[in-house]
Amino acid sequence: MTMTTATMSSPSEQPDSGRSVASRVLSVLDAFSGERRRLTLSDISRRTRMPLTTAHRLVGELVSWGALERDRNGRYQIGLHLWEVAALAPRGLGLREVAMPFLEELFVATRQHVQLAVLDDLDVVYIERISSRDAVGVHSRVGGRWPAHTTGVGLVLLAYAPRPAQERYLASPLATFTKKTIMTPDALRRVLAEVRRTGYAVSDRQVTLDAVSVAAPVRDAANEVVAALSVVVRADGDGGAVSGVPARTRRIALPGASMPGSPQATHTPGVVPAVLAAARGISLQLLRDPERP
Amino acid sequence: MTMTTATMSSPSEQPDSGRSVASRVLSVLDAFSGERRRLTLSDISRRTRMPLTTAHRLVGELVSWGALERDRNGRYQIGLHLWEVAALAPRGLGLREVAMPFLEELFVATRQHVQLAVLDDLDVVYIERISSRDAVGVHSRVGGRWPAHTTGVGLVLLAYAPRPAQERYLASPLATFTKKTIMTPDALRRVLAEVRRTGYAVSDRQVTLDAVSVAAPVRDAANEVVAALSVVVRADGDGGAVSGVPARTRRIALPGASMPGSPQATHTPGVVPAVLAAARGISLQLLRDPERP
Repeated sequence: MTMTTATMSSPSEQPDSGRSVASRVLSVLDAFSGERRRLTLSDISRRTRMPLTTAHRLVGELVSWGALERDRNGRYQIGLHLWEVAALAPRGLGLREVAMPFLEELFVATRQHVQLAVLDDLDVVYIERISSRDAVGVHSRVGGRWPAHTTGVGLVLLAYAPRPAQERYLASPLATFTKKTIMTPDALRRVLAEVRRTGYAVSDRQVTLDAVSVAAPVRDAANEVVAALSVVVRADGDGGAVSGVPARTRRIALPGASMPGSPQATHTPGVVPAVLAAARGISLQLLRDPERP
Repeated sequence: MTMTTATMSSPSEQPDSGRSVASRVLSVLDAFSGERRRLTLSDISRRTRMPLTTAHRLVGELVSWGALERDRNGRYQIGLHLWEVAALAPRGLGLREVAMPFLEELFVATRQHVQLAVLDDLDVVYIERISSRDAVGVHSRVGGRWPAHTTGVGLVLLAYAPRPAQERYLASPLATFTKKTIMTPDALRRVLAEVRRTGYAVSDRQVTLDAVSVAAPVRDAANEVVAALSVVVRADGDGGAVSGVPARTRRIALPGASMPGSPQATHTPGVVPAVLAAARGISLQLLRDPERP
């Protein structure tokens, strides 16, 4: 998804400037990131390796179309019209539109983070997240990426990915966040087989030691897994591993699940059926209306 | 926001092809709409008035970057990477990210549509909508536009818009959907003054005869109204105007509001304070962290 900037250096020498200008337009958009949401013209020029004059002209065109906007300090930011067009992405808001009522029901039942994600290359991309203000902290944001093997949604998406994509993932370096993160290809292979056997994934304290996610696959009308849905709950904790969380709030209660604080309390009994039911509900909706998303 | 296609007809004759190529790239994106989410190459060529070969080359570049994707039937659709970049739009998902916990609380309290919108030219653009499956039907979608004067969020945004923008709106033709739609500039002017006086807007059955929206302004750190928030509830009905809705479900109940079915039941007493409180909560959040969205 990143572009070569080699073709951008001398536009005037290229008779077929279509390719290079298109690349330059797109490279301006790629200059923005979650950490850099507002850029000056010089920022853009530097990050795209374009001369200031070229950047100025392209930015002007992007502003007049609505792909960029200026904030009150004159810096550039991604514009509303680009967001409007992007809202048509079937794997973005399209999918989200179909899924939302089910995500809402799950959220009302659990009051924990409910997430919807798709796989893109080696990452999960979060399409939606519903959170209450008091839910456990998570690192993802809507539109953000995360290494697939460390999350419940990622484990589901990897487990059902085409074999070549799986092998490519297993051959790539595995990012590690906690002592619980899956660290070896063999361990990951075993987990993925288990996900395929049970039909859901549990990612246990892989990103932070206070969060567990339970995820299930969403299938399209062709029965292919196109997304995954998860609920992120507070970990039961393993003694001192969960810091700053009162013991009696470490467990979650769902209708039909064991009560918080009871010795056998665990996150999965109530959450797994709820997540599976929501995922099946969305899949059924996609089966009924294959043109959506 | 729409582009002139005149400059696109003969790209080879233009020495400064930067402008026209950038325009052509953006025109490919504009070929997609809520009604046309999937297009063939010939659709794109026709809708952008570009030769098939030019369209083919640009579409190829957009696919390799991730602005477009192909579906299983080979048609093109807006791609995930464009959605990722667009997720950085402060007036889109950025605003939505700050607002979401407040929208969720409002949704849990009302179980009706909760909407967040901004003003763009003469339209409101919906940034977020949370709905339950049994809420009253609405016509808007996230990323969609609607004539401002017919909606609660639009009335709020117009009421606090700069005077020239208001005058331009008042001078433009007013779309009409029901007998309740505001039809004259004078009537609209009176409604906008009332919104400024009370600090909230009620749009009463202006789009369909079974829906009322209650909206309030969201202010940024500079105290400017940057968005509006609404709850859409079922209309109390005026006799036969509400069809297909059992009388006792026409009214909504909120904690502290009158009960459904009671003769004095109405939508506003419980909803207005809830909507105002949520809008103030979001505004306060924007004041605390002016860089967000």
